[in-house]
Order: sequence, then structure tokens, then C-alpha cells
Amino acid sequence: MRIIVDAMGGDLAPQQIVIGAVEATKEDKDLIVVLVGDTDKINPVLSGLEYNKTQVELIDAKEEITNDESPTMAIKLKKESSLVKAFDALNNLPDAGGFVSAGSTGAVLVGAFMKVGRIKGVSRPALAPLLPTYKGNGMILCDCGANVDCKPVNILHFAIMASAYAKESLKVEKPRVGLLSNGAEDKKGNELSHEAFALLKECGDINFVGNCEARDMLSGDFDVVVCDGFDGNIALKSAEGTANMMLNLIKDGVYNTGLKAKIGGLLLKPVFKSVKKKMDYNAHGGACFLGVNKIVVKSHGASKAKSITASVLQARDLAKADIPAKIKEGVDKVKIAETEEK
Amino acid sequence: MRIIVDAMGGDLAPQQIVIGAVEATKEDKDLIVVLVGDTDKINPVLSGLEYNKTQVELIDAKEEITNDESPTMAIKLKKESSLVKAFDALNNLPDAGGFVSAGSTGAVLVGAFMKVGRIKGVSRPALAPLLPTYKGNGMILCDCGANVDCKPVNILHFAIMASAYAKESLKVEKPRVGLLSNGAEDKKGNELSHEAFALLKECGDINFVGNCEARDMLSGDFDVVVCDGFDGNIALKSAEGTANMMLNLIKDGVYNTGLKAKIGGLLLKPVFKSVKKKMDYNAHGGACFLGVNKIVVKSHGASKAKSITASVLQARDLAKADIPAKIKEGVDKVKIAETEEK
Repeated sequence: MRIIVDAMGGDLAPQQIVIGAVEATKEDKDLIVVLVGDTDKINPVLSGLEYNKTQVELIDAKEEITNDESPTMAIKLKKESSLVKAFDALNNLPDAGGFVSAGSTGAVLVGAFMKVGRIKGVSRPALAPLLPTYKGNGMILCDCGANVDCKPVNILHFAIMASAYAKESLKVEKPRVGLLSNGAEDKKGNELSHEAFALLKECGDINFVGNCEARDMLSGDFDVVVCDGFDGNIALKSAEGTANMMLNLIKDGVYNTGLKAKIGGLLLKPVFKSVKKKMDYNAHGGACFLGVNKIVVKSHGASKAKSITASVLQARDLAKADIPAKIKEGVDKVKIAETEEK
Repeated sequence: MRIIVDAMGGDLAPQQIVIGAVEATKEDKDLIVVLVGDTDKINPVLSGLEYNKTQVELIDAKEEITNDESPTMAIKLKKESSLVKAFDALNNLPDAGGFVSAGSTGAVLVGAFMKVGRIKGVSRPALAPLLPTYKGNGMILCDCGANVDCKPVNILHFAIMASAYAKESLKVEKPRVGLLSNGAEDKKGNELSHEAFALLKECGDINFVGNCEARDMLSGDFDVVVCDGFDGNIALKSAEGTANMMLNLIKDGVYNTGLKAKIGGLLLKPVFKSVKKKMDYNAHGGACFLGVNKIVVKSHGASKAKSITASVLQARDLAKADIPAKIKEGVDKVKIAETEEK
């Protein structure tokens, strides 16, 4: 299988991207990574690495799309950009199963939508990161930013798509789906979430377990949490900011409370490291853009080689499991159920 | 000044509520606390305490409103409840400046709205807790749950009300107001926040500094963050859940990583305690219900005596500063500006 990699996207591109992608080929001898980007910049990195030459292919692309550009205009006009050429490769190369980029989120989403296309029946593709939980089982938040204004049916589709994704990536048969709300009780919610609640409850093909208060989002009691992209972004970023703040407050305390605290900090270093690792949701791959015809994985902008390796292997697994086909099946079933009701 | 206290509201009522309220009188010899609740339960607690008898008054109320009741029905029907009698006292007793309750949030908000009344000109009263920040300066989040569906003008009013509150409680002359959004850039946001952004930017009477990403909410760079109550609740609860999760993960690490970690944990105990205290947004009082004609402070349901003392003194300070009058002035100014424009 081929996984296409945007070698120029991300803060540490192309070096860390190339290293990470090449590393992934060592984990799977049937995997070919296709590096798309400026070969004048990629080749010097490759020349320092040892790898099986048949497992790495190159596509030269001299243009780049930056974070500051309008994604729609950039995708339309910059035909020679690594992103546009990568999507072309994803569509046209034999056995191309998925795509990984650490570049501009907006451009990746718009590009995937315009070039790869929405799965027929899906009302809105959505971005779904895999988040850490207290119990260690992982949770998929969908949507976390692709759709800031949603209709109830969009949220139903997020639940169907994220359930298909969770079955594969979390290895759970009936992913427990929660609806992000301002309280756990059924009656809690706003206009949108009340209507989404009714749709989710009616849908026989997902395992809807009710409202999820943001406090319990990372408890491990939910495999999937759905919401509009605005709220998902707020929940995710609030958690991220708080985790950083806690670690910084503890660090400040260790440095400023005296010798005892300094020694304590030293002794607890492995614990802090493990907590930091546990909370780092980028370590296990990227966020999956669900609802387009191929696997598209968006790695964090600051991704290092290790994250890219994880994202490439994640894209391979999801492509092998043919998640897009499963999503199509899921939304089709709901549609048939709706039609039969009428 | 009189501060009315709902002695029966909260998980630890009446004991911790009574102790906390009485403690507040020792901080201010001009303060009278009026305890409203079942005197058969309050008197035994009082009999164990030393205090100036002229500073504590009692109002007997034998009914209670629980978390499970419909707030509107309960306020209408339970005339003998501690909550209803407390609001009556707030309206009728001479020099009654404010009210403190650790009871059902829904009932306190509905009761305040129905019995104390909305300030003329305020489109929607809102719940505003004071949150800890990394820099230690505190931040007011408004709304955090009273209004799950909002119009742009509601959010403008939240900014005006919370600014008046921040001036007094954070002692800043021009509170920096941020609008909670899915990114810091001006163009980020959903339909509601885009319209609210325009109103906030136009308003000359607040110091609007732009969009606030949830990640930066607790940075200390904002004195006020405004949003609808659904999003505010998600941001708040996500932060709360993550802070708890981090402390639990560290605790687990200390216990399960071996002797060195256990010793490290022991040495760092004062640091963890101080971080926990810093993150505890209930320690400094309750959430203020802004936009009603008197000061209403909602303490956390699990409030201990110390929180109640803080809430009573907070209510006194806000009443002395006449925050309701300042809020009225603020919304009136905006109204005049609007009229002049036309």
C-alpha cells in the first residue's frame, strides 16, 4: 500500500517529516511512502538515512501553501504545491490508501474536500483526534474544528463516522457515544444539542449513551464524544491549556519552594514524563478527517519524526480497514431507515 | 450591611454554611448575616459557636428545594422554602445587600430572576465565576451556564456586566475582554461569535482585545472572557476535568512507580497542595449572577465553611461597590450610543 506524505507541511518540515515517514517503512515491508515536496530539500535529508529504496518514492513540488493563505484560493491556484500534488497522487497512484500532512489544517481540510471529495451521503466531513483518557483507553472527539456551525443531522453523521473509526482504532465492538453538553442529564443542552440528542437516541446503529459533561470527556467512560466543531475545539483546547498550566505550575513550585522540592522534583521526573506522555494526544498519530473518500490524517503542526511515523502507520491501518466504505455503509443505513419511516 | 445566607443549600448544609457565615461576621463588625432555614437544624450548630449575637439573625423556613425539582415550579409553589424566604428577605430587609447560596444552581438563578428581577436594559443575566490563571491575577468567565442559547447582544451585555464586576473584584481599571473562540485570529469563530465580535469591537465602553482561544483562557492575559453559557460551561468543565485528571495521574504515578517516586511525592506535597489550591476556583468565593437587581452569589454545592466565608465577604464587597448600579449605567450607555447612531 502507498501512503502519500506532504513532506513540506509542518514546523519541522521537511527534515522531521522525511525521517518519520522513512522510519514507518521499516515497520512494514509492504508499505511504500510517497514523499511530495521540493526534492532539492528532501534529497539531502534522505541521503543521510538508510532505508529500502523501493519503499520510498518522490514527487517533486516546488510550491508551498502557508498558514496565512486562504485555503480555498491556495488549493485552486497553487497547482504545483506539495499539498495539491499530494492529493493528485492520492487520487491517481495505484494502491494509494491514505495521506498524511502536518501542514495548515485549513488547507488540508479544504484540499481533501475539494480534491478527494465527500463520501456520498455524508452531510459534513469532520476532524476527529484521538484523545488520551484517565483509564488509558483513548477517546475520539468529533468534530473538533472543521464545522463551526452545525445542524443536528451533521452531529448524527459525526457519531456514525467516529463510531466506524473507533471500532478500528480503539478495537471496541460497540463504541459508547456521548453528546457533549452542559451536564450529564438528558434534559441538559442547547437547541442544537437537544435536537441532536433525539436523532442519536433514535439511531439504532450507534451505541448512544447520553449526554457527556465536558468534565467527564476524558474519563474513559466514552469511546466517542460528538459535538459541533466550535464546541469541540473549545473542549479540546481548554483541556490542552489546563494540562500545560498544571505542569508549569508544578515546575514553578519545584524551582521556587526550596531544596526539598527540587529533590522531590528530581525523584518524580519519570512520573512527570509519563504523565506528559500520557496527555500528549499527538504521540499516537494525527487527527483523522472523516467523511472524505480516502484516509486523510492531519498531524500536529509541531510534529516530530515519531508523530509522523505514528500518523503514517495509522493512515495505513485505517486504509486497510477501509473506513470510508464503512462510513458510507453507516450513513446509507440511516438514510434507508429514514426512508422506510416515511 | 446585611447579607442573606441560604443555610439549607449545599451538600454540607446547614453545618458548614452556618459556620462559614458566622466566621464572616468576625472579619467585619458592621456585617450582619441573616441565616434562612430550618431553625431546629441551625440552632444546634450555632450553639457550638462563639460570635457576636447582634451580627447573626435567623429566619425560620421549614421547606427545602432540591436539585431534582423544576426550579420554576419550586420557586412558585414552595413559599416556605429557605430559598424563597431568603429572596423575600433580600428584597425587604433594611440594608440587605446580597445573597449567598450553595443550593441548586437552577433554583438560585430562576429565583433571583423571578424574585429579585432583571436590571432594566440587561437582555440576559449571566453566571460569572472567578477563575484562577497561570499568572495568578484571576479571570472572570461569563456566561458559564445560565444561557445555553444566546444572541450577539446578550454576549455584549455579558462583557459590560463582567467588566463592571472585574473592575471591583480584580481591581483593574480597564479589564481586558476576550471572546471565546476556536482560534485567536479575528476571522475565527462561528455565526454567533462573528456577530458578537462586531458588537464588542464597536462598543467604546469596554476594553475588547479580540478572540480568546480556549487554550489561553487561563493564561492571565484576559480579565474577562465572554461566550454563551453552553460554551462557557464546556470550557470551564473541560478545564476542571483535566486538572483533576492530571492530579490523579500524578498521584497514581507516585504510588505505582516505586520507592523513589513515593519519596519524591512526599517531598513535593507542599507544591501539589499549593497547585491544587491555586486551581481551586471555589476558594475565593462563588460565581456571581450578574444582571439582577441585587448581588447574588452562587457557591459551589460542595462548599465548606471557608468557601462560604469567602462568598459572604465577596457579596458584601460587591454590594458596597453597588455593582448592579454600575451594570445599569453600562448597558444604558450602550443603548444611548445605539439611539444616537440611528
